[in-house]
Amino acid sequence: MKAILTLLLLLPLSARAAGAAPAAAVQGARLVAHLGALAEYGKNPQGGVSRVAYSEADRAGREYVLGLMRAAGLAATVDAAGNLVGRRAGSDATLKPIVIGSHIDSVPEGGNYDGDVGSLGAIEVAQVLAERHLQLRHPLEVIVFGNEEGVMLGSAALAGPIDAARLDSMSQSGKRVRDGVRFVGGDPERLAEVRRPPGSVRAYLELHIEQGGVLERAQTQIGVVEGIVGILDAEVTVEGFANHAGTTPMAERRDALLAAARFVDKLNAVVTASPGAQVGTVGWLRAEPGAYNVVPGRVRLGMELRDLDAGKIERLYEQIRAAADAIGRQNGTSFRFERHALAAPALTDPALQALIAARAAARGLTTRRMPSGAGHDAQEMARIGPIGMIFIPSVGGISHAPQEYSRPGDIENGANVLLDTVLALDREPGGR
Amino acid sequence: MKAILTLLLLLPLSARAAGAAPAAAVQGARLVAHLGALAEYGKNPQGGVSRVAYSEADRAGREYVLGLMRAAGLAATVDAAGNLVGRRAGSDATLKPIVIGSHIDSVPEGGNYDGDVGSLGAIEVAQVLAERHLQLRHPLEVIVFGNEEGVMLGSAALAGPIDAARLDSMSQSGKRVRDGVRFVGGDPERLAEVRRPPGSVRAYLELHIEQGGVLERAQTQIGVVEGIVGILDAEVTVEGFANHAGTTPMAERRDALLAAARFVDKLNAVVTASPGAQVGTVGWLRAEPGAYNVVPGRVRLGMELRDLDAGKIERLYEQIRAAADAIGRQNGTSFRFERHALAAPALTDPALQALIAARAAARGLTTRRMPSGAGHDAQEMARIGPIGMIFIPSVGGISHAPQEYSRPGDIENGANVLLDTVLALDREPGGR
Repeated sequence: MKAILTLLLLLPLSARAAGAAPAAAVQGARLVAHLGALAEYGKNPQGGVSRVAYSEADRAGREYVLGLMRAAGLAATVDAAGNLVGRRAGSDATLKPIVIGSHIDSVPEGGNYDGDVGSLGAIEVAQVLAERHLQLRHPLEVIVFGNEEGVMLGSAALAGPIDAARLDSMSQSGKRVRDGVRFVGGDPERLAEVRRPPGSVRAYLELHIEQGGVLERAQTQIGVVEGIVGILDAEVTVEGFANHAGTTPMAERRDALLAAARFVDKLNAVVTASPGAQVGTVGWLRAEPGAYNVVPGRVRLGMELRDLDAGKIERLYEQIRAAADAIGRQNGTSFRFERHALAAPALTDPALQALIAARAAARGLTTRRMPSGAGHDAQEMARIGPIGMIFIPSVGGISHAPQEYSRPGDIENGANVLLDTVLALDREPGGR
Repeated sequence: MKAILTLLLLLPLSARAAGAAPAAAVQGARLVAHLGALAEYGKNPQGGVSRVAYSEADRAGREYVLGLMRAAGLAATVDAAGNLVGRRAGSDATLKPIVIGSHIDSVPEGGNYDGDVGSLGAIEVAQVLAERHLQLRHPLEVIVFGNEEGVMLGSAALAGPIDAARLDSMSQSGKRVRDGVRFVGGDPERLAEVRRPPGSVRAYLELHIEQGGVLERAQTQIGVVEGIVGILDAEVTVEGFANHAGTTPMAERRDALLAAARFVDKLNAVVTASPGAQVGTVGWLRAEPGAYNVVPGRVRLGMELRDLDAGKIERLYEQIRAAADAIGRQNGTSFRFERHALAAPALTDPALQALIAARAAARGLTTRRMPSGAGHDAQEMARIGPIGMIFIPSVGGISHAPQEYSRPGDIENGANVLLDTVLALDREPGGR
């Protein structure tokens, strides 16, 4: 059986029907068991994990994962950025590597699936290749990136230089990133050695939970990610005038909270006025001085806009700014916007999208094209090569919380699509 | 001259024209100088004072004020509630006392006029009576009430029992009220001795700064207060569902901050929809968890309504609650109201209003009837006798801030109207 399968795989792609039966399959139960074992590192009493980057739990979890990599036949090392890199040689040393992976660090009080599914799913793919003695043409690298949830350090270090501010920033572990990198076996002085030039990777493929509820609601098994949305954040300050809430007649107020409230409502109206998957959020808001009996004189709030189209984000932002000015004129308040740099959208490769969709279809899985509203290591990897992402459903759309959950069957499906996509990509003629 | 004036005052009221020239006058410059001296106690580097009740600054300022009382010929003592009580005997010991006063404690980083003008204005009235040897029929009491800004303890202790919770509450000084009362020379175990039965006071008159901008904008010199508004506070909790701001489509959100924003706007609309001086405020608001990238799942906010008419407050509250339910239905959120007890409106005595207005007019001062949107010791004193309040303009309507300011001329006007009202009230036939 194994010999026949191997033979089949060695046939050129053209010799196989698009819907041909998969050549191999992951062991879903083993993958789920590994996820369960990883969940012990940083486990919280109330469920989920707090395995923030550079914590003791992170370090211990990484050791566990290194062991899985080695058991899967990977030559595993820790690079200078603190990434766990497991290599498997290809049959053609001139070909660029296919890279698969994700991260295992969590947010504080996070769940057991964000990052973990993609990391252990990638190792499971390597394990199956080893067990089936499936020789790829391309080198395969499984990378578990360091500190994704904090400053996305590991993948960014592959894609470009890391500035001192990022290294000096404080991580959730209480260590500065610089010290955290050392803590997990990296070397912040040697980050340049980690960098990969643009064009040096055949493809980066990442399996991930959706972290939203679109797939579940649509009863769809696999999300074919069109790209990772761009994000524009701005801190907005509304200046009014603080005054006694009893002695200041309504008509004389310059109520910063009233203006801010109208702004929150208007932002929602602007974002939802046109079709598309764009989202806009006011996630935090503080009114000052903040007492029952004082008309708020100042409000600070944080807004963000996300979409796959950077131009659309900019147009929405301009509409929202204009609306804010109009609101301010109504009641004698003023709006000031401190805009942060746009985190540019990272589009996935259309050919990889098609490949993922075809491999999912070949397994009889339903698929849906969709944006990733959340950030991922893939967005950094997009700077050095084509990327593809595979989403599986998140039950209830919940993520970054102990209740985060993806079903075993969906996890197995996702890992199988990752395996099949790697195999199909490896066989593509002319693949460099 | 003095003899003629005294003779004039001894004539029955009916013998004097309503617009007769005032019999005596305060010394405005002296009063303003006293205010300047008091401002040294708890003075802040950036202006204004932090003379919170039971602080060292409060105790030192009270000592200064006791000295002023004694210099004005008052028999001054500290009562068990920590009130400074200065007495001047009347010619008819069977008559009830006329009480005048206010407070000298401040909010943290407060101003130099709130309470101080009325306290030192009342002492100035006593000083003039002493200097002019003007004998009143009624006993006169000047009371500088303790801890008005915190829990309005001093005046409440005259009007009724004080519960243990109020005594155990923490004051801005860092002392519990119970300990603070001792600190300023009172005795929390003997508060019952301070109580006055209903009907035991001829009238309580309080001069105060407006703390709003109505008089200044209307270019009116004296506010004749119709009453102290009732206040209804409620803590409102909006329950939605916290979710990832990138991965949750707009249509799937249960955004508690969006619902709260619509509530803030709607409360304003309800309050301003009908004519009248009612005010409604959302003074504080907190969104949880409060991050750029999370749709807020819960908002807590504080609302209050104020008006002279308790029924109107209740009607507005019901309209607002109904509006909240409708807002919640729009986006899958729910509103919960924790309503605090209504602080009932305290109406001033119509006869005292008329007397104040007439005495102001006799000095050629412009007047305006108006509610007091802020709370005052007078609202407690209303429980034991008729009250009257005299407002003077606050420049810019600013109060509870270092910029709080009332002009010397306005202060002098207010104190003169207080003096004239006391004199006129004392002469009223049948006054008990």
